[in-house]
Amino acid sequence: MTLVVQKYGGSSLADADGVKRVAQRIVATRKAGHDVVVVVSAMGDTTDELHDLALQVSPLPPGRELDMLLTAGERISMALVAMAIANLGFEARSFTGSQAGVITDSAHGKARIIDVTPGRISGALTDGAIPIVAGFQGVSQVGKDITTLGRGGSDTTAVALAAALSADLCEIYTDVDGVFTADPRIVPAARRIPKISYEEMLEMAACGAKVLHLRCVEYARHYGMPIHVRSSFSNREGTWVTLPAEQKESGMDQPIITGVAHDRSEATITVAGIPDKVGAAARIFRTVAAANLNIDMIVQSTSRVTGRADISFTLPRAGGAAAMTALHDIRDEIGFESLAFDDRIGKISLIGAGMRSHPGVSADFFSALADAGINIRMISTSEIRISAVVDAADLDSAVTVTHRAFGLDDESAKAVVYGGTGR
Amino acid sequence: MTLVVQKYGGSSLADADGVKRVAQRIVATRKAGHDVVVVVSAMGDTTDELHDLALQVSPLPPGRELDMLLTAGERISMALVAMAIANLGFEARSFTGSQAGVITDSAHGKARIIDVTPGRISGALTDGAIPIVAGFQGVSQVGKDITTLGRGGSDTTAVALAAALSADLCEIYTDVDGVFTADPRIVPAARRIPKISYEEMLEMAACGAKVLHLRCVEYARHYGMPIHVRSSFSNREGTWVTLPAEQKESGMDQPIITGVAHDRSEATITVAGIPDKVGAAARIFRTVAAANLNIDMIVQSTSRVTGRADISFTLPRAGGAAAMTALHDIRDEIGFESLAFDDRIGKISLIGAGMRSHPGVSADFFSALADAGINIRMISTSEIRISAVVDAADLDSAVTVTHRAFGLDDESAKAVVYGGTGR
Repeated sequence: MTLVVQKYGGSSLADADGVKRVAQRIVATRKAGHDVVVVVSAMGDTTDELHDLALQVSPLPPGRELDMLLTAGERISMALVAMAIANLGFEARSFTGSQAGVITDSAHGKARIIDVTPGRISGALTDGAIPIVAGFQGVSQVGKDITTLGRGGSDTTAVALAAALSADLCEIYTDVDGVFTADPRIVPAARRIPKISYEEMLEMAACGAKVLHLRCVEYARHYGMPIHVRSSFSNREGTWVTLPAEQKESGMDQPIITGVAHDRSEATITVAGIPDKVGAAARIFRTVAAANLNIDMIVQSTSRVTGRADISFTLPRAGGAAAMTALHDIRDEIGFESLAFDDRIGKISLIGAGMRSHPGVSADFFSALADAGINIRMISTSEIRISAVVDAADLDSAVTVTHRAFGLDDESAKAVVYGGTGR
Repeated sequence: MTLVVQKYGGSSLADADGVKRVAQRIVATRKAGHDVVVVVSAMGDTTDELHDLALQVSPLPPGRELDMLLTAGERISMALVAMAIANLGFEARSFTGSQAGVITDSAHGKARIIDVTPGRISGALTDGAIPIVAGFQGVSQVGKDITTLGRGGSDTTAVALAAALSADLCEIYTDVDGVFTADPRIVPAARRIPKISYEEMLEMAACGAKVLHLRCVEYARHYGMPIHVRSSFSNREGTWVTLPAEQKESGMDQPIITGVAHDRSEATITVAGIPDKVGAAARIFRTVAAANLNIDMIVQSTSRVTGRADISFTLPRAGGAAAMTALHDIRDEIGFESLAFDDRIGKISLIGAGMRSHPGVSADFFSALADAGINIRMISTSEIRISAVVDAADLDSAVTVTHRAFGLDDESAKAVVYGGTGR
């Protein structure tokens, strides 16, 4: 008998009919002979609605109370799913994050799971009941206060719980058929990726692919928990996120490039005319970091004439105002000439473990963009990823031409294999 | 410094503006130098809406899950109230029933409070924070499952918490100015009762007065906790529910009759032509009790001609179908002739501690109804109460004429005092 942890997102639980459909799927898993533990998100847009309600009451609600408020969302959906299962003749018991033993730190709104002690979940399984656990929430180790894990936290709950219960696999149900080679809304020829390694999925998630959240994949990699991302609206296979070893077992040729991700949530700041002083760049980035903003890409150029440098970097668009204010405050101290903010940018990323052994990928990528007349503003790379910042208006076309250039379009019978047909 | 427990009902917390108004009132209490602990109900119709949602998913939701669902309501309101208080510059911390130490039995949907261990509430007070506690909910002693206390349970939470914290008083905020001598929607001349004893309030609540719930008053009487029922929409004094001793301190003449209550939620069943057998009546009432229905009033009459008896009794209207089915099943066994159900009835009750020493009250009550041409179908009495069942169509007029007959109308300068002006 296998133990499966299934996670259902808000889009699968949009209304009473959605709840009933999910209950049928859970019961079907049970009838197929598996033990099943379920993790649920809040129904539909409940979390956003509760957040709006909070802002009607207070412009800056305290984190502890916002977490208390938002966790009402999963409480509602988990109880309803349990009821719908009971109505199908199986016993189900709902548990809050706290009851399920999800212990976190005290960082309200973005708490990290410290430990999972799922004694009540194991007990319910032993009793033959189906445990339904609230995703996204936990209880702080120190203050015993209710915490939330941040958006996408239900995926993390599911994987953490699966690891703590030594489950055989974790199924993440969503409203799409899995992880695609690109966003199908931009590239209609995008294909479902049948298997992807943890590290590739991490890069995809970090670069804007929204199907799985970064932290959930980090957890899965750490514990070696296989994830199956699939649709709750069909019975089709989705995407397996596993160790690369398992990926190779398929024996098929693997494409060099696994997928093309894009991200519209960033902006750039350019600090121009920085005098040639030791520590100026460090002072700039320390200032931005103090505003609690993560910087992604950095470009520095120095004028041979003036000796002054320009530094551009990307950061989350939402943090733009805070960063600009903080930098203005140190203008006189550093003596730079100007500050510019630009949110009309987009980031395209090419991800594939095959890059490691195929150095020609960057050149092909830049050629594809150049052929389409797309200007590259910044570049960054990792071992298995190349990212480029382009004008926001060019982003869709950049994704489309890159997807085609690397043979990912569905029309091509086979993906490009380097050293093969010779692109 | 006094410690006040304030309870705000759903009508006071109907929307974001209501939440902000309540927060201002709480902060005003604190600024006046009092320690304050707040108990909240769910906002507006939230509980009903969640119940409807449950019925969309399952016709008969399990009690454990229904309680888990419904408790989301107070979770939302308590977090919002805490946020609104924080926005006014005071620290507030919300606590679920479980976190506040409200320990109950395991009777989901109608749990009874076994113990209150408010360690976290006392701790928050010590820290200078204002604790906001979810009413209506607790956690079961045995299974550690979330329970609810049944409708009106937030009042009970407030009084139980006030007792456990040795508070000086418990304020119950609602959308009316207090307890009235009759329902002002029926009797526009009804007056607010400034003070009422626990036992009178218990009879009022048991007989249909909806301002306070029975169990809450039982709790207050048991612990001698003074309750002040008042409106959250004004600063007027409301009704004090206290020991009769304190009531007498006012030195004023107390009216014999404190108030007139009415109840439209009951129905009658008549079992006619019961053969003269020992134990027939007992069998009938045991059958109704087995259907978990409380019988209120009973009338039995025996025909001198046939020797057969008719028994009529009142029960909650909602339980009518279950009782009729159960009685049908024992018809052959007992051999009665017919069964009749009538929900076109209403109950009027006259309550007053003064009745004990003034035996003429019943006669005056029946005369008032007779003068108005109202037929009495059943009668029951306690030491401080007389109740009569009348036709539903006559109920409003029965309340009106009785209220006037006992000098409770606002027009009369002074309430009737027996042995006085000689009605």
